[in-house]
Amino acid sequence: MADSARRNTLLGGLLDPIHRSGLKIDPKRRRPRRCKSAPLTDFLQGETNGTQQRPFSESIFKKVNPGLWKVAIFLLVYLGVGTVCFYLVRNQIKGKKINGVLDSVYFCIVTMTTVGYGDLVPNSVASKLLACAFVFSGMALVCLILSKGADYLVDKQECLLVKAMHMRNKVGQSEIDKEIETYKVRYKCMLSMVILVLLIISGTVFLVKVEKLNVVDAFYCVCSTITTLGYGDKSFSTKAGRIFAIVWILTSTLCLAQFFLYVAEVNTEARQKELVKWVLTRRMTNQDLEAADMDSDGVVGAAEFAIYKLKEMGKITQEDVALVMDEFENLDVDQSGTLSISDLNLAQYLNR
Amino acid sequence: MADSARRNTLLGGLLDPIHRSGLKIDPKRRRPRRCKSAPLTDFLQGETNGTQQRPFSESIFKKVNPGLWKVAIFLLVYLGVGTVCFYLVRNQIKGKKINGVLDSVYFCIVTMTTVGYGDLVPNSVASKLLACAFVFSGMALVCLILSKGADYLVDKQECLLVKAMHMRNKVGQSEIDKEIETYKVRYKCMLSMVILVLLIISGTVFLVKVEKLNVVDAFYCVCSTITTLGYGDKSFSTKAGRIFAIVWILTSTLCLAQFFLYVAEVNTEARQKELVKWVLTRRMTNQDLEAADMDSDGVVGAAEFAIYKLKEMGKITQEDVALVMDEFENLDVDQSGTLSISDLNLAQYLNR
Repeated sequence: MADSARRNTLLGGLLDPIHRSGLKIDPKRRRPRRCKSAPLTDFLQGETNGTQQRPFSESIFKKVNPGLWKVAIFLLVYLGVGTVCFYLVRNQIKGKKINGVLDSVYFCIVTMTTVGYGDLVPNSVASKLLACAFVFSGMALVCLILSKGADYLVDKQECLLVKAMHMRNKVGQSEIDKEIETYKVRYKCMLSMVILVLLIISGTVFLVKVEKLNVVDAFYCVCSTITTLGYGDKSFSTKAGRIFAIVWILTSTLCLAQFFLYVAEVNTEARQKELVKWVLTRRMTNQDLEAADMDSDGVVGAAEFAIYKLKEMGKITQEDVALVMDEFENLDVDQSGTLSISDLNLAQYLNR
Repeated sequence: MADSARRNTLLGGLLDPIHRSGLKIDPKRRRPRRCKSAPLTDFLQGETNGTQQRPFSESIFKKVNPGLWKVAIFLLVYLGVGTVCFYLVRNQIKGKKINGVLDSVYFCIVTMTTVGYGDLVPNSVASKLLACAFVFSGMALVCLILSKGADYLVDKQECLLVKAMHMRNKVGQSEIDKEIETYKVRYKCMLSMVILVLLIISGTVFLVKVEKLNVVDAFYCVCSTITTLGYGDKSFSTKAGRIFAIVWILTSTLCLAQFFLYVAEVNTEARQKELVKWVLTRRMTNQDLEAADMDSDGVVGAAEFAIYKLKEMGKITQEDVALVMDEFENLDVDQSGTLSISDLNLAQYLNR
């Protein structure tokens, strides 16, 4: 409110009389404006020549993109420790047992994914507390897998799906890449749905063939498992069934969760696109011009316009801009309102 | 790589000789640079005077911020329909029954949150398929609640927590607001942890007092419930217990999920801050200056600097900027490289 009031008073007739006369068109005056791409991560690393900066930047980029191998190692360590622990307390777990080690891995997976059939349940203080510890850390691990690993795998598979869709009309790799870029989230969503359907079918067929359930019971058990509901009236009770379950439960629960994440992402993206469209088609008013004019020179440059519109789209906030502006003031040693080579040289000279 | 090569050749000795001589400091030359805040949503709506734009913008902002009431209505409708459905098939559900309607609500909550104790299980084709349908829609609803409702409620409670932390040294509301703004995600994380601990304690005490479990079993049942594990060997089996469970299961499972979301957010924010710090303290090189200079006038203005740094921080992408630049070219009717009142007037004149 205060902001709006200030703009209106500042605007009044301040800018209007100055620029109303400048109504002339000269196509040759158009200055070239190149859209340079953002500095790339690896380019940045190659560019930094200060020995002090290098390790810091490298450590940051490693943290931002922890590899898939890290997630895989976490999962293996978790399952390894879980299996050993539950194997050690196997006599304090009651229920339908088949094979010591297999049951431990199966129990570990059923607990970690929070399916919790209840066909095997801890039966002593130690085993109960152990199960509590493992379900919490398992949930944290599932979050980590969802945030890193799954996304990466789907990224890799995406191209195959789009290729399959265009089987009839032969298109080149570059066209496929371009189409994937445009509808990225949509394809991810579709791909995880395809995988999910395959997992549901394979699970149902397996339960009918191996566990000898009827089709409805098999489908019910599949749904109860992938949603991590796990009532436990139907579960994997044969040796082959539990071996299958170890792999199938882990993949299918993760796949459904990932699918929900992608659906949410598609929704967010659609809303964001609508907002971007609205911001770009909204008519610029004199108030907007005044507000966008960061250096108060009466005109709005390309970069000033971009910042104003990106703020309106919610991509950046005023705090982001303020933070960068502080740094700009520091760098602008000769206080000319612009940065030039002379500023850089002067800064180097003063720091010597 | 190509980008880096182009920058180096373009830079060579092009900018250096021009600006090396401009090494003079004149504090009075510093131009005032105001940091204006981003246009607010309600301000924007008040400002648009075109009758065509208004309904569109309003519909967008309603979509972006669907009210809490919408989520509450969804939840009530879901529970209402679920209770009626499961009440109608109550004879096809086997297990420990206490009271028709109460059991239906309880079964609905246990299914929707994917706790799935298995103390009540569907026992016919119809009830099994009904449970499958309800668990999928329940998961979608939980996602919706997590994305909208919970966040809103925690926002409202935040202030109380910070006030409680500052009980000794009396601080004003404005200072509390400011502190909340700075550590927003951290406080949300702490608050949901406090609520979670209270829910765990209340659940354990209730199970010990009312369901007559020993302390370890009660804690084990609480952990098994809030993580939606639900082995089902311990569950709510008295009338009072099931009434308590209806409210407690819904709040505690949502609270734990929300807590995990906030922890993920805190991590992301910490990484983002590290990156921002690195980007801001990295020394500007001549290459950077050249790359940041969008209008190629040899100097980098405040807005150009901001865009360059924000791209480096990953807050905006080159596509975002390119999209806005297209719009800028359209608006810049007199093709002067800047927007002024004359451009706006000219555009109005041409559209007439």
